[in-house]
Amino acid sequence: MRCDVTHFKCEIRDGIATVRLDRPERKNPLTFESYAELRDWFRDLHYADDVHAVVFEGTGGNFSSGGDVHEIIGPLTRMTMKELMAFTRMTGDLVKAMQNCGKPIIAAVDGVCAGAGAIIAMASDLRMGTAGAKVAFLFTRVGLAGCDMGACAMLPRIIGQGRAAELLYTGRVMSGEEAERWGFFNRLSAPDTLSDEAHALARQIAEGPNFAHMMTKTMLNQEWSMSLDQAIEAEAQAQAICMQTSDFERAFDAFANKRHPVFEGD
Amino acid sequence: MRCDVTHFKCEIRDGIATVRLDRPERKNPLTFESYAELRDWFRDLHYADDVHAVVFEGTGGNFSSGGDVHEIIGPLTRMTMKELMAFTRMTGDLVKAMQNCGKPIIAAVDGVCAGAGAIIAMASDLRMGTAGAKVAFLFTRVGLAGCDMGACAMLPRIIGQGRAAELLYTGRVMSGEEAERWGFFNRLSAPDTLSDEAHALARQIAEGPNFAHMMTKTMLNQEWSMSLDQAIEAEAQAQAICMQTSDFERAFDAFANKRHPVFEGD
Amino acid sequence: MRCDVTHFKCEIRDGIATVRLDRPERKNPLTFESYAELRDWFRDLHYADDVHAVVFEGTGGNFSSGGDVHEIIGPLTRMTMKELMAFTRMTGDLVKAMQNCGKPIIAAVDGVCAGAGAIIAMASDLRMGTAGAKVAFLFTRVGLAGCDMGACAMLPRIIGQGRAAELLYTGRVMSGEEAERWGFFNRLSAPDTLSDEAHALARQIAEGPNFAHMMTKTMLNQEWSMSLDQAIEAEAQAQAICMQTSDFERAFDAFANKRHPVFEGD
Repeated sequence: MRCDVTHFKCEIRDGIATVRLDRPERKNPLTFESYAELRDWFRDLHYADDVHAVVFEGTGGNFSSGGDVHEIIGPLTRMTMKELMAFTRMTGDLVKAMQNCGKPIIAAVDGVCAGAGAIIAMASDLRMGTAGAKVAFLFTRVGLAGCDMGACAMLPRIIGQGRAAELLYTGRVMSGEEAERWGFFNRLSAPDTLSDEAHALARQIAEGPNFAHMMTKTMLNQEWSMSLDQAIEAEAQAQAICMQTSDFERAFDAFANKRHPVFEGD
Repeated sequence: MRCDVTHFKCEIRDGIATVRLDRPERKNPLTFESYAELRDWFRDLHYADDVHAVVFEGTGGNFSSGGDVHEIIGPLTRMTMKELMAFTRMTGDLVKAMQNCGKPIIAAVDGVCAGAGAIIAMASDLRMGTAGAKVAFLFTRVGLAGCDMGACAMLPRIIGQGRAAELLYTGRVMSGEEAERWGFFNRLSAPDTLSDEAHALARQIAEGPNFAHMMTKTMLNQEWSMSLDQAIEAEAQAQAICMQTSDFERAFDAFANKRHPVFEGD
Repeated sequence: MRCDVTHFKCEIRDGIATVRLDRPERKNPLTFESYAELRDWFRDLHYADDVHAVVFEGTGGNFSSGGDVHEIIGPLTRMTMKELMAFTRMTGDLVKAMQNCGKPIIAAVDGVCAGAGAIIAMASDLRMGTAGAKVAFLFTRVGLAGCDMGACAMLPRIIGQGRAAELLYTGRVMSGEEAERWGFFNRLSAPDTLSDEAHALARQIAEGPNFAHMMTKTMLNQEWSMSLDQAIEAEAQAQAICMQTSDFERAFDAFANKRHPVFEGD
């Protein structure tokens, strides 16, 4: 997988890609350029075979302040509807690209995680946070609706409809403790071990059967709009496919020989 | 917005409507007349431009005991199927009217909140409660199913499928503490400050961008049956619309001038 | 309802069926034969009028270890796609049969509850557990995906999307305390009273209006893929049907005469 990016930091080691927003002096805002580059990078990731998990993080004690007021909000107030739709579809396409990339994404969230930053955390598969994390769906504060980049679909599925409604109508901060208690964060870490623990979890997942993980991710995202009967049939097909992978055989052989399985992702 | 109602209390001040069930001697039951009048009032609210949030509350330390046994359940036992369908559709239409009115609704719940009363709380966007609140989906106790007025769709989305199933099969009381822990109540207040705090939250929300809030409410209710891709496209359109409101510009201007934005809802 | 089964234990007393996986020396694994027999038994249960609730439990301090490695996983590694699909559809059909049987199912979960065992617990309507219960969606450990028998549809609806993703990607154990806190278990019992408490809850539910319970179960499972408007109309019809049952009349008569209603399920 390529790491030739300019508007965020990219590093790939041992099959784990680290995506890092890196403008700490402004709390790592998103810009038109970084949205587009992230979208393109996650789209390419779909076809990559050498990355098995992604850690998405910030720099300087914050995750991301979201769309920059001067670089994004200002220009948006002067756009035509056609230009606005191009923008909202681009940001939505980033979420779609993250959900369709086929690799589990772990967001490591410390400090400010606001607006589009909160959406990126939400569009990840797992979220690790800190007690000091401040997650806020700020859209209402800038005169916009809570329905941004899929928020009204994703947030209720993670923390429930009532809690999602409060956060989206008020734009108030969800604290780290609330986020853990409500299921937004999978767990809390200390700020100075957060990145290491997120990478350790990414490695643990990446050592699993990666083809099967891709299928898990696909189905977790697709089945919300299926009936239970449709979901069960879809999983019968998806799991039957996984049962013809070599990783399934490797697991059985390892078990039969009282070894630990080593998965290869095919 | 009109307040010419007879079967409940209506008050509108500074853009906040207070809807109050007011038969405290019977714990504020619903009747055929109050169902119909509430439905009509919330339908009209859809077109009102002078109400930006609603507080729904009870009187005398209780929210609502639900459908009155003598005034509703008795007559229902003697109705034809055609008449029954007219009734169940009327009650369902109240929920639809609340969800389609375009204004955030905050239920302030103390004491008994049972049957259709619990549904009304659930059909609100936010719920504030007290430790002494007793929420019960009593339908099973009167020989009916838990699927009343959309309960089997709404309750699992708020508190999860397993907890919803228990409440709907047993009809048991969910305590105030459980309701907060499970996400049914957004927070707990003392009984004597509940109404004030609900109104304070309503004012805070009403000071936000009301056109955008209407869009948030619309999308929170519509996206459950969309796929994630459909939801993201729907939000790209909805948010682009909000980006052409003056409130969005007002927010940017205020920010650029280090002022607090004053929203006007257009 | 028949109890002529060979691959699990079946007992019916006072309208409560107890289904018990009973190979304690191997922690009650599932086999090709027990899957098929359970599927057939739950399908027949749909038509039974003398069972009103089911308790699903294990023996010897464990619920179920899931698909047996030697009896199921080994053979699966040698099957054709046609044979694999027959298997995954059979296991999915067990979930469908449990969801379509029309009777509330209470899983009583102590000790190991892994793989397909965890799915069976999840496909039940209510779950009672113990602090020592160890629920694990182990599929990833044997090289497979988390999308097994409907898991990616059911688990997020019970405990939320983020927590479900972690359990399905890592295969880690969810402890009894986590399961209660997250809404997977409705409550925790001591190991030696678990079965009795599950049966007491089953009796309590079975004493309710069983035709109406069947409708509640049907709608709780069907409404996830409906829009809210569709769900409200579906419930208007479902509840109108229940309003023509004698149980509804029995409840009103009992109330009017200050008696406790005795439901008969019609």
